[in-house]
Amino acid sequence: MSLPTEQVIRAHSRAAVHPTALGRRPLGAGEACISGGSLGGWQRRNRTATTGHVIEQLGLAGNLDNLRRIADPAGPEAAAPFRGRYPFLDTDVFKTLEGVAYGLAADEEPAARAFYEEAVDLIARAQRADGYLNSHFQAPDIAAEPWSDLAWGHELYNLGHLVQAAVAANRRLGDDRLLRAAVAFADLAVERYGPDGDPQVCGHPEIEMALVELSRETGDDRYLELASLFVDRRGHGTVALRVFPAEYFQDAAPLRELDSVTGHAVRMAYLAAGAADIAHEHGDTDLLVALERLWDDMVATKLYLTGGLGSRHSDEAIGDRFELPSERSYSETCAAIAVMQWAWRMYLADGQPKYLDVFETVLYNAYAVGISDDGTGFFYDNPLQRRPDHQQRSGAETHGEPLRRGWFVCPCCPPNIVRWTAELQDHLAAVCGDELQLAQYATGTIAVDGLVLEVETDYPWDEVVRIRVAEATESAPRLALRVPGWCRGASLTVAGETTDGLEPGWVRVDRPLAAGDEVVLTLPMPVRAHGADPRVDALRASVAIARGPIVYCAEQVDHDVDLDLVVVNPAAVHEASVIVDRLTPNADAATRTIALRARAGGAPDAGLYPELGATAAASDAEAAGAEASDVELRLVPYHLWGNRGADAMRVWLRTA
Amino acid sequence: MSLPTEQVIRAHSRAAVHPTALGRRPLGAGEACISGGSLGGWQRRNRTATTGHVIEQLGLAGNLDNLRRIADPAGPEAAAPFRGRYPFLDTDVFKTLEGVAYGLAADEEPAARAFYEEAVDLIARAQRADGYLNSHFQAPDIAAEPWSDLAWGHELYNLGHLVQAAVAANRRLGDDRLLRAAVAFADLAVERYGPDGDPQVCGHPEIEMALVELSRETGDDRYLELASLFVDRRGHGTVALRVFPAEYFQDAAPLRELDSVTGHAVRMAYLAAGAADIAHEHGDTDLLVALERLWDDMVATKLYLTGGLGSRHSDEAIGDRFELPSERSYSETCAAIAVMQWAWRMYLADGQPKYLDVFETVLYNAYAVGISDDGTGFFYDNPLQRRPDHQQRSGAETHGEPLRRGWFVCPCCPPNIVRWTAELQDHLAAVCGDELQLAQYATGTIAVDGLVLEVETDYPWDEVVRIRVAEATESAPRLALRVPGWCRGASLTVAGETTDGLEPGWVRVDRPLAAGDEVVLTLPMPVRAHGADPRVDALRASVAIARGPIVYCAEQVDHDVDLDLVVVNPAAVHEASVIVDRLTPNADAATRTIALRARAGGAPDAGLYPELGATAAASDAEAAGAEASDVELRLVPYHLWGNRGADAMRVWLRTA
Repeated sequence: MSLPTEQVIRAHSRAAVHPTALGRRPLGAGEACISGGSLGGWQRRNRTATTGHVIEQLGLAGNLDNLRRIADPAGPEAAAPFRGRYPFLDTDVFKTLEGVAYGLAADEEPAARAFYEEAVDLIARAQRADGYLNSHFQAPDIAAEPWSDLAWGHELYNLGHLVQAAVAANRRLGDDRLLRAAVAFADLAVERYGPDGDPQVCGHPEIEMALVELSRETGDDRYLELASLFVDRRGHGTVALRVFPAEYFQDAAPLRELDSVTGHAVRMAYLAAGAADIAHEHGDTDLLVALERLWDDMVATKLYLTGGLGSRHSDEAIGDRFELPSERSYSETCAAIAVMQWAWRMYLADGQPKYLDVFETVLYNAYAVGISDDGTGFFYDNPLQRRPDHQQRSGAETHGEPLRRGWFVCPCCPPNIVRWTAELQDHLAAVCGDELQLAQYATGTIAVDGLVLEVETDYPWDEVVRIRVAEATESAPRLALRVPGWCRGASLTVAGETTDGLEPGWVRVDRPLAAGDEVVLTLPMPVRAHGADPRVDALRASVAIARGPIVYCAEQVDHDVDLDLVVVNPAAVHEASVIVDRLTPNADAATRTIALRARAGGAPDAGLYPELGATAAASDAEAAGAEASDVELRLVPYHLWGNRGADAMRVWLRTA
Repeated sequence: MSLPTEQVIRAHSRAAVHPTALGRRPLGAGEACISGGSLGGWQRRNRTATTGHVIEQLGLAGNLDNLRRIADPAGPEAAAPFRGRYPFLDTDVFKTLEGVAYGLAADEEPAARAFYEEAVDLIARAQRADGYLNSHFQAPDIAAEPWSDLAWGHELYNLGHLVQAAVAANRRLGDDRLLRAAVAFADLAVERYGPDGDPQVCGHPEIEMALVELSRETGDDRYLELASLFVDRRGHGTVALRVFPAEYFQDAAPLRELDSVTGHAVRMAYLAAGAADIAHEHGDTDLLVALERLWDDMVATKLYLTGGLGSRHSDEAIGDRFELPSERSYSETCAAIAVMQWAWRMYLADGQPKYLDVFETVLYNAYAVGISDDGTGFFYDNPLQRRPDHQQRSGAETHGEPLRRGWFVCPCCPPNIVRWTAELQDHLAAVCGDELQLAQYATGTIAVDGLVLEVETDYPWDEVVRIRVAEATESAPRLALRVPGWCRGASLTVAGETTDGLEPGWVRVDRPLAAGDEVVLTLPMPVRAHGADPRVDALRASVAIARGPIVYCAEQVDHDVDLDLVVVNPAAVHEASVIVDRLTPNADAATRTIALRARAGGAPDAGLYPELGATAAASDAEAAGAEASDVELRLVPYHLWGNRGADAMRVWLRTA
């Protein structure tokens, strides 16, 4: 296809996800802007530290070299062997490009610009005349043929990330060079795997949501249709199995018939996110119902308190219902992103705030924990507990490291953070008919359809979100605000008039706004204690502490007593103190820690499996050796743990 | 070396483990014999079903073909590619040979004999002139050179299993053909890796205990010294790492300095078993103390209630202290064997009954569960819980299968069962000075040094072990009987005189025995409830039921109520009924099941992580939705689970 110039320019302000179907339209460039607060700090760190670090690592690890030698078959790199272990290493360049496109749109930065220009140029020159691009399969020293191994070759997964980078560059920078490359590759995919092609699917879903977005960006429905084919072909034993079972690939049962999220966590959530896009564009209510059923089941049985997804290191798998071990939580950072992508698309499709509640939980916990305070260290998997004697690394060298690392042999997570943090503002708000819905709260500006709002808040630490109406035309949309699911007794003050006792969900400002109005949303944030469904064996007789959307944990570094011997009485939680306490150098100044009274016992000495007396309860075992004393626990935001040394940590604490 | 004929013949009656150092001498061929009861049934099934099945599978999977084409470079197999994925597939032939040598000594069987003769012949002909033998590295289509990859090549591990098969054939059948092959290969190893050789170690420990036994069998100390070098070289970053970390290989710290068992479970326990042999032969008290410290720490923090070792699927690793998830218990069957081998050697070295207690626990639970009732299906990993919706297979195709399978791509466990079950009688009793110590109880005959005992018992189901003295010379050894650690109030009747209230440990019959005497050991077996150290998060507020050495479980197939919603009051356990109930066609007729009253609630409906009221306890979550009713649980021996369909199962049940 040829790309009409006008269309490219018109696309420039679109948000990262831009449905063409009826419903919600997310605010994009020039419409939603984060300028400070917690998320503003994350974005600043992303531009000033993480992006540069990731670009440097891509250079050191060879991801760029792999493209250079294909782009310059006579160049100095041409004779070097392919670098890295995987056929999807181009995607780390693509994801970084996606983030850099957003970053450059916000703030010109020479190193990021240089990377962007070189990578865009390399991609154009490395691409084959037929549109194919994969520096692994194109490498002279790699024996495998292109398209010879859809199960593990990741070529369509590669294409997906190229498309997403291309759409970002086109929308944010008005630069269609990557889009032309992506369209050429996508056209090849349509030819090979479209309605008249080979009925295969990629082993790793991702391309589905990319193709839908490409369709939205170009107006070419063939991409949407190919995405739809990929979703419906899967689940019929379509993937050629090698070592891993069909469940791993979400290929044992069709998505529409699955009763629970299954297999590899990132693949599952990417697939579901793409399917949500398709359901939305097609108005496919059956598919949307199936996705909501999967979502609800996931939230009720398979999601960590932090919003993490994936209970197993083996297969990076989701695991069974209620199988949620803290210390072996995999909760890959990429899965956190994938769950947010799925959540956002479900919200766009049907408007329910429950998706945004989970989005928020993931954002401030399972996602935020994935990066170090200085922005250059990363978790691949994100445990909710670290044992005091933790010493054994588990699995491949990329996994289970004691603390955040600078890079991985499989480096999927760090560039995924670069892009996702850079585009957070595209996931703050959406317009639905004559209503502007604020999904997440961040200091910044929202400007759409004659309404300009200045938002100021220390959320998620402070309960007040202050919104000043800078402009409001008569036809400006009405305002709807999300009261999070964790919140009880929210109140809303509009131009001095207060409504109390608001329930979670959408709160609508039932009058037109005028310039100068102030809207104040107050979301009370008492310290909360959470238990767990008793079917979660790993969490029985345990309590976790949260405040607002933030899950807390105890780190051994703050305590003299062994955290495994601390016992918390949930009833004491209402006496906890909340302290403004910037825990780490780059944390938000408004960060809160929590002080909580608890009891600490001695180490039990009755053996690992003490026999229980015929008249005694299970607590015999606990009583043994327990000379309890009062202790004050310092609870810190889970996402900041592990920035002050490698020590034991617990999200879930024992109850009496 | 040349092998003196007299020595070979003298060795014929030695037990599987035959220390030359002072201390305990295990009873071997002609001295200890199992003729019936529970273990007798296992051995019968091993000879009549399992051995034939394994031999058939070795043929189908290509393990024999791999040897055939090396043995016959002009034969029909020579041009075929190497079959199977791993370089250690010869060991499955060797382990089967080891078991078959024991089996043929007990009962001539044509198919086993044919396998034995062919395999021995193939091994002799496949072996290189320099003694080297490995059908993978010798295969014309495998590019890798012998000895090029000690970390993953498993060549010394292969040698270890060849040695053990050879020693078994020599001791049990008086056939030294395999021993000559083993000696030639071992001499090559001494030359290459001995005191003047390359200071390397095998990635997979196993050879250590084999070399010690070869030294015991041949009188050649060089093998013992090589084993000792292998133990002491390890732990200094000796293994060339690829993907897996040094901990995996027990190579991050020297064995003598380890504070906890670590890394790959089977490797760890094989290494420790070999080290115990070395400590014993060398009188190396420091090493023995280090091993006891490791053992005690393992028992106190890392062993499952069943005796299983290995909490992680990833890396087949042991995991951290108190990390013992039921549903993700790896507890590989081979690790069960390795722990028993370690236990037996520790007992031989210092005589403490605590090792035999664990041996017994492993034998009747973590080990016994690894094989199906009909003897032809196998677990690779042995979970203690199966979730109701379990559907996802995890990891490589060999792991986490829902139920026992006939064979595996990595088929290490089934032939390991063949050999271990065949040589159980070599682990029943030992002579220590003028004392005969009965370590385990089985129907059969014990005959040593002028004392002949006929043992009759329905142990582990019945509490009575009846020992008739058939012969007793004046110089015959005194008798010592082990009262298991789980037993309270044992009593011993000797020739009509009863001693009550015996404590666990060794009970010595304090008088000489005479022909016709009857010794009756009564080991009361009330149903017991066990709790767990509260630091085991996975088991808090849980109870497990045991009786004698048998751990019980509940299977969903026997219950209408969801097992995850059943709540057991440990105080009700003393009212449980014990029922003679042969659960499966091949189970011992004396098998007991247990009927226990419990409560079953409705499914909680407060969400996965309900907020706990400020004044409420964690049990809020449990109370929600719980309309409890009385139920009668049928508890069945854990090792028999999964023989009546693939359904949910729990060893640990919730307490109120």
